[in-house]
Amino acid sequence: MTTIFDNPAEFADDALDGFVAANRNYVARVDGGVVRSTEMNPNQVSLVVGGGSGHYPAFAGLVGTGLAAGSACGNMFASPAAGQIYRVAKAAAMNGGVLLSYGNYAGDVLHFGQAQVRLNAEGIETRTVVVTDDIASAPIEEWEKRRGIAGDLTVFKVAGAAAEAGLNLDDVERLAIKANYRTRSLGVAFDGCTLPGAEEALFHVPAGKMALGLGIHGEPGISEHPMPTASELAELLVSKLLADKPDDAGNEVVAIVNGLGTVKYDELFLLFGRIEKLLTEAGLTVVEPECGELVTSLDMSGLSLTLLWLDDELKTYWGAPADTPAFRKGNSVPRAQRNVAAAAEAEAAELETPTPAAAALGLQAVSAVAAIRDVVIEHEEALGNLDAIAGDGDHGIGMRRGVDAAAAAAQKTANLPGGTSVAAILTAAGEAWSEKAGGTSGALWGTAFIAAAAALGNKDSYSSQDAADAVGAFSNAITTLGKAEPGDKTMVDAILPFRDAFLTAISSGTEVIDSLKEAAVVSRDAATATSALRPLKGRARPLAEKSLGHPDPGAISFSLIVERLGQHFEQELMESGTRA
Amino acid sequence: MTTIFDNPAEFADDALDGFVAANRNYVARVDGGVVRSTEMNPNQVSLVVGGGSGHYPAFAGLVGTGLAAGSACGNMFASPAAGQIYRVAKAAAMNGGVLLSYGNYAGDVLHFGQAQVRLNAEGIETRTVVVTDDIASAPIEEWEKRRGIAGDLTVFKVAGAAAEAGLNLDDVERLAIKANYRTRSLGVAFDGCTLPGAEEALFHVPAGKMALGLGIHGEPGISEHPMPTASELAELLVSKLLADKPDDAGNEVVAIVNGLGTVKYDELFLLFGRIEKLLTEAGLTVVEPECGELVTSLDMSGLSLTLLWLDDELKTYWGAPADTPAFRKGNSVPRAQRNVAAAAEAEAAELETPTPAAAALGLQAVSAVAAIRDVVIEHEEALGNLDAIAGDGDHGIGMRRGVDAAAAAAQKTANLPGGTSVAAILTAAGEAWSEKAGGTSGALWGTAFIAAAAALGNKDSYSSQDAADAVGAFSNAITTLGKAEPGDKTMVDAILPFRDAFLTAISSGTEVIDSLKEAAVVSRDAATATSALRPLKGRARPLAEKSLGHPDPGAISFSLIVERLGQHFEQELMESGTRA
Repeated sequence: MTTIFDNPAEFADDALDGFVAANRNYVARVDGGVVRSTEMNPNQVSLVVGGGSGHYPAFAGLVGTGLAAGSACGNMFASPAAGQIYRVAKAAAMNGGVLLSYGNYAGDVLHFGQAQVRLNAEGIETRTVVVTDDIASAPIEEWEKRRGIAGDLTVFKVAGAAAEAGLNLDDVERLAIKANYRTRSLGVAFDGCTLPGAEEALFHVPAGKMALGLGIHGEPGISEHPMPTASELAELLVSKLLADKPDDAGNEVVAIVNGLGTVKYDELFLLFGRIEKLLTEAGLTVVEPECGELVTSLDMSGLSLTLLWLDDELKTYWGAPADTPAFRKGNSVPRAQRNVAAAAEAEAAELETPTPAAAALGLQAVSAVAAIRDVVIEHEEALGNLDAIAGDGDHGIGMRRGVDAAAAAAQKTANLPGGTSVAAILTAAGEAWSEKAGGTSGALWGTAFIAAAAALGNKDSYSSQDAADAVGAFSNAITTLGKAEPGDKTMVDAILPFRDAFLTAISSGTEVIDSLKEAAVVSRDAATATSALRPLKGRARPLAEKSLGHPDPGAISFSLIVERLGQHFEQELMESGTRA
Repeated sequence: MTTIFDNPAEFADDALDGFVAANRNYVARVDGGVVRSTEMNPNQVSLVVGGGSGHYPAFAGLVGTGLAAGSACGNMFASPAAGQIYRVAKAAAMNGGVLLSYGNYAGDVLHFGQAQVRLNAEGIETRTVVVTDDIASAPIEEWEKRRGIAGDLTVFKVAGAAAEAGLNLDDVERLAIKANYRTRSLGVAFDGCTLPGAEEALFHVPAGKMALGLGIHGEPGISEHPMPTASELAELLVSKLLADKPDDAGNEVVAIVNGLGTVKYDELFLLFGRIEKLLTEAGLTVVEPECGELVTSLDMSGLSLTLLWLDDELKTYWGAPADTPAFRKGNSVPRAQRNVAAAAEAEAAELETPTPAAAALGLQAVSAVAAIRDVVIEHEEALGNLDAIAGDGDHGIGMRRGVDAAAAAAQKTANLPGGTSVAAILTAAGEAWSEKAGGTSGALWGTAFIAAAAALGNKDSYSSQDAADAVGAFSNAITTLGKAEPGDKTMVDAILPFRDAFLTAISSGTEVIDSLKEAAVVSRDAATATSALRPLKGRARPLAEKSLGHPDPGAISFSLIVERLGQHFEQELMESGTRA
């Protein structure tokens, strides 16, 4: 049961504020998360971690000397939005580049990926190492598909220590990849956890049973067992992890027994004692182990065992000092406080003065986003019903949440004193869409808006080629981030035909509005034609059979939106008297 | 629910072993608990803490540089036995004396008190500061009677830092007293905790309710409330603590929000944020706060707020570095490992070679303890029934547990190679009694045995004066430790008349056995006469009225035992042919 809160909807933010209040000597609050409040080396790599809230000390509790430079903090069990990650990374970045690292979950991959694109585009060299330690979530042949659980800690610790030691981004990335490759975890669950304000647990494990490999948000496990003794549990976890050890594992391991919430310290220690004995009997040397609550899930009843197979290099960085709110090791060099607030303010003041052309186009963008909102609202229920046939039925509400936020953000940005460019307006709209919609399609729409915004920029004049570039950037962002191929039965099946038709029309000299209207017809046909496809990616994949005979909701919503945009711009032109 | 264990009866020991396995660079296992595994200053004061298990990081997690030198670890929620505390303190002691500190619970007071007597008797200067921070457990006029809860941490931290800084025992004690005087806590509970192997929680709070001031083992609270919001809870805790602040409190406070088990980090942080705001609004400065799990109760749902009102001296020692498994602050001077095992072995090897007289008397002691066991078993049920009239009915089973363990320990010690003195045998019996019986009467019997053992020693010959000295030491230990007066309706009402009659008989030249038989008759009459008394101390006090007309079970069991001892020694003499 989660008991302490005021407004459940604000729980994650309120908790983060309190965390910062209790740890001001370590961390400072920035928009989207926290960064180190202490001085860093001017040329060091900044390790930026993050994920959903509710997993403390992951992730904000691991920010400090010798570990993370910043943490992007999402809502409860939900990825931080790309804009949040971007802003945290900007505030955390020194001159050595940024390494993003987080557990392998679809939402996080999308949002961190989106942030990485933005950071690199701004000249902050950014790499990513995704943690994939949970052996229950995919077989060893597909280890890159595994989820990230308590192995976050070993990867973050090694990368953070390497960054603190002054290694460059290549080496920090290489070490993080190696630490991840040599980290294996396996968890068990005895019962689920309850989100703030919820009456019921997010999931349950039957009384007297143990679920092996069940994920920290209730994702499916491998098998269910009667409750074992501590010795039986130790035997089970150790034998499964040893069977999955990496090549050239060596015989030195870090062992981490991690409690998920309500399995308490004495229980964890008891189990650790049994596990250490088994590892020693297997001829292994246990090096600098950890036993406690390191990656939790609110009040979930469960635990995990993580093994990091050391080599000399990993041993050095695992054993190096670290000093964070929740994880301390050895003696770190004391650090003075730095003025994070001043740095963030300076950053915020950087908004460019818009050109008259960019400001005018910005106002058009505001009304265009409002038009998108209208069409989404009109079709919200139908999109939901269509999605419910083979998906979870949330496409309508997700699009609605995203576009509501995008329209409000666009309007708010346009109203800023001094005016704003189309780039600033569409960036704000994209960030808001991404942040509020949640899920894959929100991240895709948000990223695509931001990519289009960057293509439009703050220019002295705009031609039809700029429209073509914006559409190209929009489409490219979707395919790059979403990684869907044509024929996978996703929105890509409506977008690529649209883009091709639009670019062809523009390059043959057709006006922007007419190009848009032509391409929208192509897009609608393409979206309708997805009925015949079997889903290979995205929301409908698990229930592929049911999806046959129905179009993809994401393709449909895209085609509805571009169709409406054509009507909208034509209407505007007519009202302004430019077209009869 | 406590889930992870093999044999529930061995849970606390197994967990402690695992804790040490996970923290070898900090702690070493000794009989009864843990001590620092790192070097200490040769002349420093050793802070020895402790209490029941199930409260991690209290108490073993607080052993390390700048904090405790050792922790005595009892069974789940049960005081460590005096012998355990004594051995931990011996292993932890340097040359600066020992400060014992622990939360104010009857069992702990008894057992730590008993250990203090032994340590001082052996020339290790030992003082005690009992933590009394829980404002819910007694009004401010009786603050010395309050329970100890999360305020343990502030008192231990200040005392440990002062010891590390090289202050002498007078100053360390003075600072601990001051820290305790200026520490106030208040807790709330939402639900109880479940001991290993138990099906049901130790206690419950009604669903949707919050118990204010409920103790960490379910001891009664002040009041019950509907579940508040976080802001309301913060307001309640802060206002109650501010109303109870000490004289000359000043305006700098350490604030500690402590989770008891299943109230998780995000919730604690959220509450901390609200609390810090209220304290700041009240004109106070919050200094180096803590927010997390510091004194827990297994999987209990609850939390507490502690305020330590600082002055310059307390601020220095609160802020000083500390480095323990569960509590770290600042940068401690790195310490090499010391060889604790070798020190403990050297200690154990010190067992004195017995004189022939002491060895012979030792064998008599073994059979005497066996005779005591016989009479306790015969009367176990009757003693339980008598105790149930106005107490909790456990006197029979408690005596049985104690004497079973004492008889086994006496026999085992007598069988050690090279023989053993009466002192070694009775000391082992007393330690075992104290450890296994639990509760007040176990501690009293155990201490009394050990005191008698010390009086008998390892002499070349024994006279009837030695018997008188042993009885005097036995009786003195009971009155010193139990603090009962004649007429309070306790075992003292049978012991003092027995002692007086025995000493009078011996000094008038009566043989030891006859003196014993005469005194036993006096004791029986005195025990029977307790029927007329109204209990003022001990087990029957809460139900004083019901007790009227029935004798005190502790007085009765004592008189039964001395009566049986008279018969036993007479029988032995007859069998050996010395008396017809």
